[in-house]
Amino acid sequence: MTEMHSHAHRMISKIIEDNLPDEAVVRALANQDLGEKIHLVAIGKAAWTMAAAASRYLGDKIQTGVVITKYNHSQGAIPRTTIFEAGHPIPDENSVEATKAVLTLAEKLDNDDKLLFLVSGGGSALFEAPMDGISLEDIAAHTGTLLAGGADISEINTIRKRFSKVKAGRFATLCEPANIFAIILSDVLGDRPDAIASGPATSDTSTKEEAIYIAKKYGLDLSPAHKTLLEIETPKTIDNVTAIVTGSVRSLCESAATSALAFGYTSYILTTSLDCQAAEAGKFLGAMARDSHFQRPCAIIAGGETIVHVTGNGKGGRNQELALAAAKSIAGLENTVIFSLGSDGTDGPTDAAGGIVDGKTKASLAAQGLNIDKILADNDSYNGLKAVNSLLITGPTGTNVNDVAVVLCM
Amino acid sequence: MTEMHSHAHRMISKIIEDNLPDEAVVRALANQDLGEKIHLVAIGKAAWTMAAAASRYLGDKIQTGVVITKYNHSQGAIPRTTIFEAGHPIPDENSVEATKAVLTLAEKLDNDDKLLFLVSGGGSALFEAPMDGISLEDIAAHTGTLLAGGADISEINTIRKRFSKVKAGRFATLCEPANIFAIILSDVLGDRPDAIASGPATSDTSTKEEAIYIAKKYGLDLSPAHKTLLEIETPKTIDNVTAIVTGSVRSLCESAATSALAFGYTSYILTTSLDCQAAEAGKFLGAMARDSHFQRPCAIIAGGETIVHVTGNGKGGRNQELALAAAKSIAGLENTVIFSLGSDGTDGPTDAAGGIVDGKTKASLAAQGLNIDKILADNDSYNGLKAVNSLLITGPTGTNVNDVAVVLCM
Repeated sequence: MTEMHSHAHRMISKIIEDNLPDEAVVRALANQDLGEKIHLVAIGKAAWTMAAAASRYLGDKIQTGVVITKYNHSQGAIPRTTIFEAGHPIPDENSVEATKAVLTLAEKLDNDDKLLFLVSGGGSALFEAPMDGISLEDIAAHTGTLLAGGADISEINTIRKRFSKVKAGRFATLCEPANIFAIILSDVLGDRPDAIASGPATSDTSTKEEAIYIAKKYGLDLSPAHKTLLEIETPKTIDNVTAIVTGSVRSLCESAATSALAFGYTSYILTTSLDCQAAEAGKFLGAMARDSHFQRPCAIIAGGETIVHVTGNGKGGRNQELALAAAKSIAGLENTVIFSLGSDGTDGPTDAAGGIVDGKTKASLAAQGLNIDKILADNDSYNGLKAVNSLLITGPTGTNVNDVAVVLCM
Repeated sequence: MTEMHSHAHRMISKIIEDNLPDEAVVRALANQDLGEKIHLVAIGKAAWTMAAAASRYLGDKIQTGVVITKYNHSQGAIPRTTIFEAGHPIPDENSVEATKAVLTLAEKLDNDDKLLFLVSGGGSALFEAPMDGISLEDIAAHTGTLLAGGADISEINTIRKRFSKVKAGRFATLCEPANIFAIILSDVLGDRPDAIASGPATSDTSTKEEAIYIAKKYGLDLSPAHKTLLEIETPKTIDNVTAIVTGSVRSLCESAATSALAFGYTSYILTTSLDCQAAEAGKFLGAMARDSHFQRPCAIIAGGETIVHVTGNGKGGRNQELALAAAKSIAGLENTVIFSLGSDGTDGPTDAAGGIVDGKTKASLAAQGLNIDKILADNDSYNGLKAVNSLLITGPTGTNVNDVAVVLCM
């Protein structure tokens, strides 16, 4: 491993460590009196980490709890808490089963109970109870159509929340008369709480008119019953919830900048809301590695959430696609390393967190008869990067505050 | 007009002025003894400007001359020189007619004659004599297929040069035994002289194998005769040419940086070789306007040549498409202006040089019932920007050193 690769891997460890939600959860709880009858519900990719931190801090004040996280994201038992693992990004039967357990808990809540609700990205798929008249398979099919069409997460959620008993503030109304204290770890650009995990405890700013527009834009095949569901408006005022939003892609970028600085790189944060196509972002960053006028050694940092229009049948994720496209742009370049990292550790439906490439990556692929354009056309960045040992593998990290891409130039 | 728009327009004037080729031509000629029997051939979008500068400097040492430039790019007579205007980006009958005049001149050249050859971008289409066995219409059809498929200029030229009697060094061999002094104004990323105007006087680095690969990649419909032409190799050594490459997108970016500085903006040159999709580059730059950590007021500068995959039936160019996409990304933002400029003054097949947008552009479009996504899907950026008075109109500028996009943030 070159010195620059070593810097990159040590930066990645530091970026994840800095952005674990434990401390943020404790900070949020420190100023609250939640009483002695606390019930815990945690949903999302960071649910286990957040719940464990809350449990350590609150001890046996937590009377009952349910955690719903993605498969392989639980790290063990938490006192008086049932832990479920379920499907992401497509919800499955375990999502519904786990959500039923939460609804059973919610039904029993009384005036003097307090619900501590820990929300992180991924909750949209993991926390799900379909409305009457629609099946989970129907919702999955609609979600698949939206993802394949390149819809962004906000558009997908505007549709999905209307098919759900719990999203878009509806869960909060089910918890009445109890009050909810919510800690929300943001993985959404702009940190709009109603967009994070589809905002189960947040009044909804999306409208039924928007939902109908999006359904048309992506050509959703809706039955009359589904159309009717789109037309039921979501709660616009909610008065039993106090919410704190914590974590953000900004802090992810700032960690990258700080840790790069420690290795002697001047840091430039280009943006914390990157939202263009992943491969094109990779080309743009590659062009910067070739010909920027920034002072070297430099670390060029872009945070956000890029998109992928899936047209091929391969396996990959947006961070892997960004890195692979960048590899073509920097082919032959010395002293350049580019990585793109999903802070949750699972980029797309893969076990990789992202990719890391340099000026030799393209040649290494070619030596195996692999062509980057062809791999990108197949959306097969996972297998492409895997062939040349350029996947970033972290395992589930316990946090989820979006993505960061970094160009290191000596 | 706001103060920032005024800054942008004054920057644009200064950028073009700084990059006119007159001075570069004189500088290149000052150190040369070309003798007393000089013949002038100038091709490309900057041909007239370059020829006029040479004529002013060399006077009646120039015995005969031919200028071939794009329609409306001639600015008047030049002594002892025939001026032709012809088709671009698709060559037409006037391209062939004008090229015949050049070939007639070339045939008469003797040992003691010197050809002063002034080359600028656009020459690929303007300077054309089809090989036997292929018609101009055939070449136009193949070029159209390549452009529509999103081929980059280097790929297009690798094919086109093999259908031509003059491209890829072949013109230089036709001028033997005379020597050629070439001044080449670069509009190609990386300034590879064999790629500029398809390198009529430059030994060719592309291979027939590459040509065959590109033809397959974009699905060119080739007759057996055309296939045969692809297989004739181009000259790999040329010994009657001295060439100077001048001008570049780097100087374009540096002019932007210097003029922005004069208005108080800290300048950041991101890259001088941007080559991703135009609309995605616009989104990336828009994301930087929203959330960069650069010190404000700042000018964020990216030079290069983006690409457009034409799928709609509208009218536009890569600079206009970049600007329009950026308008969506910065909707609602105060104190932000983004422009993208083709230095030649004619972006795509339009009379605009590019586009200029701000945080109100999207709302202005919406007020007329126009939707940016729909306009981009139609590749109709020209009409979209025109509707809200956001086209940059400079007319043909007399230079051609690629594009620059600038984000101004107060």
